[in-house]
Amino acid sequence: MTLPAHGLPAGTLRRVRIVGTGLLGASIGMALTRQGIDVELSDSSPTAQALARDLGAGRLAEDGDDAAAPELVVVAVPPDVTARVIADQLHAYPTATVTDIASVKGRILDQVRALVEPRTLDRYIGSHPMAGRERSGAIAARADLFAGRPWVICTDEDTPAKDLQHVVDLARLVGGTPVHLDADRHDAAVARISHAPQVMSSLMAARLKDAPMDAVALAGQGLRDVTRIAASDPALWAQILDANAVEVRNVLTELREDLDTVIGALDGRVDALGVLASAIGAGNEGQARIPGKHGTAPTVYSTVTVLVGDKPGELGRLFTEMGEAGINLEDLQLEHANGQQFGLAEVSVLPAARGPLIEELRARGWTVPE
Amino acid sequence: MTLPAHGLPAGTLRRVRIVGTGLLGASIGMALTRQGIDVELSDSSPTAQALARDLGAGRLAEDGDDAAAPELVVVAVPPDVTARVIADQLHAYPTATVTDIASVKGRILDQVRALVEPRTLDRYIGSHPMAGRERSGAIAARADLFAGRPWVICTDEDTPAKDLQHVVDLARLVGGTPVHLDADRHDAAVARISHAPQVMSSLMAARLKDAPMDAVALAGQGLRDVTRIAASDPALWAQILDANAVEVRNVLTELREDLDTVIGALDGRVDALGVLASAIGAGNEGQARIPGKHGTAPTVYSTVTVLVGDKPGELGRLFTEMGEAGINLEDLQLEHANGQQFGLAEVSVLPAARGPLIEELRARGWTVPE
Repeated sequence: MTLPAHGLPAGTLRRVRIVGTGLLGASIGMALTRQGIDVELSDSSPTAQALARDLGAGRLAEDGDDAAAPELVVVAVPPDVTARVIADQLHAYPTATVTDIASVKGRILDQVRALVEPRTLDRYIGSHPMAGRERSGAIAARADLFAGRPWVICTDEDTPAKDLQHVVDLARLVGGTPVHLDADRHDAAVARISHAPQVMSSLMAARLKDAPMDAVALAGQGLRDVTRIAASDPALWAQILDANAVEVRNVLTELREDLDTVIGALDGRVDALGVLASAIGAGNEGQARIPGKHGTAPTVYSTVTVLVGDKPGELGRLFTEMGEAGINLEDLQLEHANGQQFGLAEVSVLPAARGPLIEELRARGWTVPE
Repeated sequence: MTLPAHGLPAGTLRRVRIVGTGLLGASIGMALTRQGIDVELSDSSPTAQALARDLGAGRLAEDGDDAAAPELVVVAVPPDVTARVIADQLHAYPTATVTDIASVKGRILDQVRALVEPRTLDRYIGSHPMAGRERSGAIAARADLFAGRPWVICTDEDTPAKDLQHVVDLARLVGGTPVHLDADRHDAAVARISHAPQVMSSLMAARLKDAPMDAVALAGQGLRDVTRIAASDPALWAQILDANAVEVRNVLTELREDLDTVIGALDGRVDALGVLASAIGAGNEGQARIPGKHGTAPTVYSTVTVLVGDKPGELGRLFTEMGEAGINLEDLQLEHANGQQFGLAEVSVLPAARGPLIEELRARGWTVPE
């Protein structure tokens, strides 16, 4: 038995190999390196690999370095080659746990199962950190990408405890919160909370492509919010949607039924007002279930709207003065005035803080409308 | 000829009557009152009317006050009674311009046309301030609601110049930017940039209503943004959608065609990856056309991500120090870490300011990931 090396966290990991040094692989490497883990990087592109090293994601793999095999291999390559790379790594590192971080788990598990023996398969545990960015590549990586985000780990009754521990330690070392779901539940969940919303945001944004510019010019914050993620990468998302086709189709098919009902109401075929109000009302109910920022229970905050000049330091002064008053900002919505040099800040605070905040801000000369 | 009263803006309006003292009517009243306009309030609910007065939206109408008839009547009642009230006001104030602020213009124009003589109709000009809130009632009103927002005015070749000027002055007095569109163009535009996005946000959020809580718990900022406006009022939106049924149906029907194409690709019936990538790519194009905050041309900002502690004053310190460095914050995205007491602030700045900002923040001890 070897003792943990001095200075390392009391976990099971000392050496981790990362295959694929894009946004996620490089971010994992940076986070692990900061925790004192020896990170070995590998990418099919020598340039990408060297860039990730230079950004602090780890060191390059050395040939013939068998004496110090990794306890864990993280496969962070595009979804369409993930299963093949997992199988290769299971064979190349016969004592290591192998995980991947692809957004869809069921299809990859099936593909790996077809490529390796059942005993070898036991060392594979799929996982999925619920984190990402609209930008890609190691250049967009950051060590805190996973901080406080759920990290889904897909296990079943055959998963060896040692292998599971390696993946749990990985999630914790990078600051994530391990969440256990089997592959099917995971895929159904992300279809609903991530993949279908991506499709709907993109389809809505596409309706602006050929719209008259005087129409688009009337857009407000609502449209900007609904379509923000429509800026995401088409090639990556095509792979994700394709890999989770059955589950995404299920959600979109449900949605199409509701859409047909709304279109039917607009056609005047049924009780229009009742149907339309029900559709918006059902959205109220669903929206209210989305977790607030601190964990899983939705928190209802009170809002205070403040007029702020659009010049350096105005928002800073606002938040400094909130801080001086001992009031924590829970969320912030900036509403900009088109063509004007000022805007409205809608700050969310705990309900009990609303009255004191308004009083405090007015006393300091801020414009706080009723 | 009378001279403008001392202290009043050099416009055409001195007395304005507002019928309907909900969110919009009361907000208009507050803004006009601040500009020194004599505002007369009227609402079918004595309580609502008194509340708006107490909030500073104007004074209550007095009986037999014909000597000082308003130059302009603003009808701000629910869409289903708007036309009837417009007709009544046109008859009651035979020299006044009458406008309304309902979200849909074509149907109301048709309804008013059926209720009044053509000569009387000339004094009616529909308008629509592109502003609102998820909350309703005078209690949510604010004088700056329209500041910097487009205010659509629907005119045709028969619109008398004097009446048009009254409505333009109204829009300017409350801080809005007058935009001229005919009723049909307006209705087509808002169907696309407001009404259809509302439906899609609501339908997407409704898919979370019966979802397992462990699925909803994985939600991130993308889902929160897509579904934010799904919190809107069902009864009001049912009326808006119903009043603009033809145009909203057109947009939703286009969207359904795209949705069918995506579902078909997910069914494996066609070249899936190509179809899916095209759908996401079309969304990229549409999203890029949405105006940035300062006017109608989309502005591309550079972003800098900063780790901020979730305690009073941290964001304030960040923005104060940005201000000290002379760098203006153009936009802000807060990404909260679930269950953690810190978050990431993604600040948008003009591209030229990005490098200096990173240097400045790091010099001051902020964590700014690569």
